[in-house]
Amino acid sequence: MKIHDFAAFPNPARVRIALNEKGATDQFEFVLVDVMAGEHRTDAFRAKNPSASVPVLELDCGTYISECTAITEFLDHNFAGPSLTGKTPKQRALIHMMQRRAEQYTMDAVGAYFHHATPGLGPDLETHQNEAWGLKQQQVAAEGMYYFNNVLANNPFVAGDEFSMADITLFAGLGFADFAKVEIPADCTHLNAWRERVAARPSVTALAA
Amino acid sequence: MKIHDFAAFPNPARVRIALNEKGATDQFEFVLVDVMAGEHRTDAFRAKNPSASVPVLELDCGTYISECTAITEFLDHNFAGPSLTGKTPKQRALIHMMQRRAEQYTMDAVGAYFHHATPGLGPDLETHQNEAWGLKQQQVAAEGMYYFNNVLANNPFVAGDEFSMADITLFAGLGFADFAKVEIPADCTHLNAWRERVAARPSVTALAA
Repeated sequence: MKIHDFAAFPNPARVRIALNEKGATDQFEFVLVDVMAGEHRTDAFRAKNPSASVPVLELDCGTYISECTAITEFLDHNFAGPSLTGKTPKQRALIHMMQRRAEQYTMDAVGAYFHHATPGLGPDLETHQNEAWGLKQQQVAAEGMYYFNNVLANNPFVAGDEFSMADITLFAGLGFADFAKVEIPADCTHLNAWRERVAARPSVTALAA
Repeated sequence: MKIHDFAAFPNPARVRIALNEKGATDQFEFVLVDVMAGEHRTDAFRAKNPSASVPVLELDCGTYISECTAITEFLDHNFAGPSLTGKTPKQRALIHMMQRRAEQYTMDAVGAYFHHATPGLGPDLETHQNEAWGLKQQQVAAEGMYYFNNVLANNPFVAGDEFSMADITLFAGLGFADFAKVEIPADCTHLNAWRERVAARPSVTALAA
């Protein structure tokens, strides 16, 4: 199986952390998609993923799977290792709910700010900027940090007692926030403490290796 | 268990169709959230769902679950009946991928057009309009209809051979498109034929009852 991605980017990090958590990284070949050169917008890549985003999972049967949640569902159900998407109906629901909030409040909000209200990836790639939209989403990201800080005041992990896909999404989203210069407020102490714990996980430290 | 919603709206329809597919509707009490009066933006409702959207599932233990995908995961794993989220890792991945595309290309794109580039729910509720963003998303919705038309030229259902959560999302998104006056192009014959088949399912015809 293959992962088509661009290692330094936030969504690829989500799948790479999930692969490390499942102990399955060595079963994949990684294929570089040169996003900075616009390769993700070519017809050849859009045939793999019409949303023109990385990462994309290629199964041995030739099927392409995009969207990190979908890829994580595949990995979680195809490999042993700790559950990332939950075992009971309630766990599954809480993880999918919090995962979606981590996307909406952090990953997607920071992404909208970066791509719309900053130079983003440069004028060749940022062809549809809307500054007011980007600035509104910057507010969403800031409010989201306080929301997750409150969540993490009461729970060790984003969706409860166990590390899950929701933690991976939020952690990658905060990495994107660093890159886009959306600061985590210093008084978000629970969020910052959780982030340090996640950063120390072997699945995350392995990314830098 | 309870569902807090506003029956006429597109996201509530997703969960109501899923409940009907699972034969579980009669196990829930439905609680009206008066969205037109802004009840979803009150502190009392935000305590149930900080995203201030319907529907919300209330479990008997007092836990609130929002986000249609998360609610559908709960329903699909908690009740018998046909699988809506897939049984194999590959099915699960395809369904989650296509579900997300149905959200991005149709439900969310139409929603952004409606709330940002039309009077939407009126001036009291549409407090942050961005017309350019809404018009851009109208384009996304139009392109999305051709994308799904191509998908449905080759598959009986959105994620393959079986009806799933992805069909429910797209169907509800097209209902929203009707309401927002985003037309399905007449040459999207496969999309229109699929829509007629889904509209005839007992889980959907029961909504009008």
